[in-house]
Amino acid sequence: MKKKIVVALGGNALGNNLPEQMDAVAEAVKPIADLIEEGYEVVVSHGNGPQVGMIQEAMTLLTRNNPKYDHFPLSVCTAMSQGYIGYDLQNRLREELLDRGIHVGVASCLTQVEVDPLDPAFQNPTKPIGPFLTKEEADIKARERRHVFKEDSGRGYRRVVASPKPKAIVEIDTIKALADSGYVVIASGGGGIPVFRTEHNHLKGAPAVIDKDLASELLAEQIDADFLIILTAVEKVAVNFGKPDEKGLDDVSVKEAKKLIEEGHFAPGSMLPKVEAAVKFAESKKGRTALITLLEKAKDGIDGKTGTRIHE
Amino acid sequence: MKKKIVVALGGNALGNNLPEQMDAVAEAVKPIADLIEEGYEVVVSHGNGPQVGMIQEAMTLLTRNNPKYDHFPLSVCTAMSQGYIGYDLQNRLREELLDRGIHVGVASCLTQVEVDPLDPAFQNPTKPIGPFLTKEEADIKARERRHVFKEDSGRGYRRVVASPKPKAIVEIDTIKALADSGYVVIASGGGGIPVFRTEHNHLKGAPAVIDKDLASELLAEQIDADFLIILTAVEKVAVNFGKPDEKGLDDVSVKEAKKLIEEGHFAPGSMLPKVEAAVKFAESKKGRTALITLLEKAKDGIDGKTGTRIHE
Repeated sequence: MKKKIVVALGGNALGNNLPEQMDAVAEAVKPIADLIEEGYEVVVSHGNGPQVGMIQEAMTLLTRNNPKYDHFPLSVCTAMSQGYIGYDLQNRLREELLDRGIHVGVASCLTQVEVDPLDPAFQNPTKPIGPFLTKEEADIKARERRHVFKEDSGRGYRRVVASPKPKAIVEIDTIKALADSGYVVIASGGGGIPVFRTEHNHLKGAPAVIDKDLASELLAEQIDADFLIILTAVEKVAVNFGKPDEKGLDDVSVKEAKKLIEEGHFAPGSMLPKVEAAVKFAESKKGRTALITLLEKAKDGIDGKTGTRIHE
Repeated sequence: MKKKIVVALGGNALGNNLPEQMDAVAEAVKPIADLIEEGYEVVVSHGNGPQVGMIQEAMTLLTRNNPKYDHFPLSVCTAMSQGYIGYDLQNRLREELLDRGIHVGVASCLTQVEVDPLDPAFQNPTKPIGPFLTKEEADIKARERRHVFKEDSGRGYRRVVASPKPKAIVEIDTIKALADSGYVVIASGGGGIPVFRTEHNHLKGAPAVIDKDLASELLAEQIDADFLIILTAVEKVAVNFGKPDEKGLDDVSVKEAKKLIEEGHFAPGSMLPKVEAAVKFAESKKGRTALITLLEKAKDGIDGKTGTRIHE
């Protein structure tokens, strides 16, 4: 049996526009191809913060300019972002593998992820998306659509949306079937298309953006992965970050990691959710390891040479 | 072995905006679920004419309003349309099946389709997409981006793009693997993301929109389908259409159909490509039948009760 890895790419690492994305993806696929070349079964997930914001901005401009178009919900914009990012990522990864003589298919799977309508995140939306508005524009939209806006560092008002916890990956069996058939699967893009489960097990788009690290963690648990790699902008998670006694972490037990979380070493909205996702994965089953590191260090991290590894 | 069917839904039948699409999809999934309930293995493809135009218009507005964003090629807009339509279609079909107690997974697969850079369609672009422009706007874009614009019935200038023939479905093995594992697969949306094959078998987005009927035909051949159903706005294909001696066609042989094509019975850009795709499928292998009919008549058509069936 091949060892399985879920690699979670950050949306911010994929660039703010198409040329940036094409450059970023061309680099991102190399370490992923390294892992495939080493013989691992790989499932790739990715964030979509800048991308879903961009698409939502475009669709908002469209509805402003043309009364024929109604509002485009965030769930639909996330579905579009899975096409926007998935196409590029799938294509470049396919090329990188071909160039190495590795004949493995790459498949992108539209993925819905269920969230709980009673998740407290819906009472306290925190994730800013989309364009900056004036107070007047924000007030009108707040009334018309019940959106929530917050002033953002003097730059204007931005819509903030809920970032609820993922409960279930609707297309998990599809992802497993493809991975088991030998495909590299790109799944759960942008944390997944957020949906509520309604009567008769129907699904309805939810006004949210799911945290991609937590969604990747759930994906890794459900495909029974051995490793979860959360890629970020630093080689190692640090304690006393930014202070003279800053220290990068190597191997950390679940118990130690929980203690460091309690001591407030990790910034909310930044390193904290990554460490939390890593801990959740590491304690979900014996033998599972979560790795937090730089994209280009992924393989070295799996080999135990660098990065921060959290395990029992 | 289950009999296999490819169902090709028209992009125009999916509505011009999201509320229209949601209504259209809710209806479209019923006859598809009927076929699945009858025991057929079903792969669904769909057009994206209005949808890719809408997305391109939105992305154009975004680039006009924000210099940070560069041009979004048509291939990327088609990828986004696969997310936009696939999410809705997958979700509603899943619900319709669940409501009938049918526990079958539905999966949407991002699909690239290869076209030939020497296809004559690139010398004679015919498919209008996106917003109407003034002559001045069109002239600027024509210079800047080498786009081709044509005056459209006094309403302004519209970009016209090539509609080349599909050569190969890049993700065909993924689609087969999922269909063979029992999934209802949504694939080749909008005729597929158009790509050229370049050096080292790399792929590059092509400025085109592939005809969805021809792409569906290729898909049907390659998954070794028994039936190709091309859904359209009439119950039967007619000869002498719109004349006093108009006559709906029932069972037509490949030979007869070719004769009728030669006699000019079918309108280019409308019924002609559908009949051509149907003939191509029917003559590709013994025992294959192509059906052209209304969405709600799909099952009756397969049962031989209505619609136009083309076979050897």
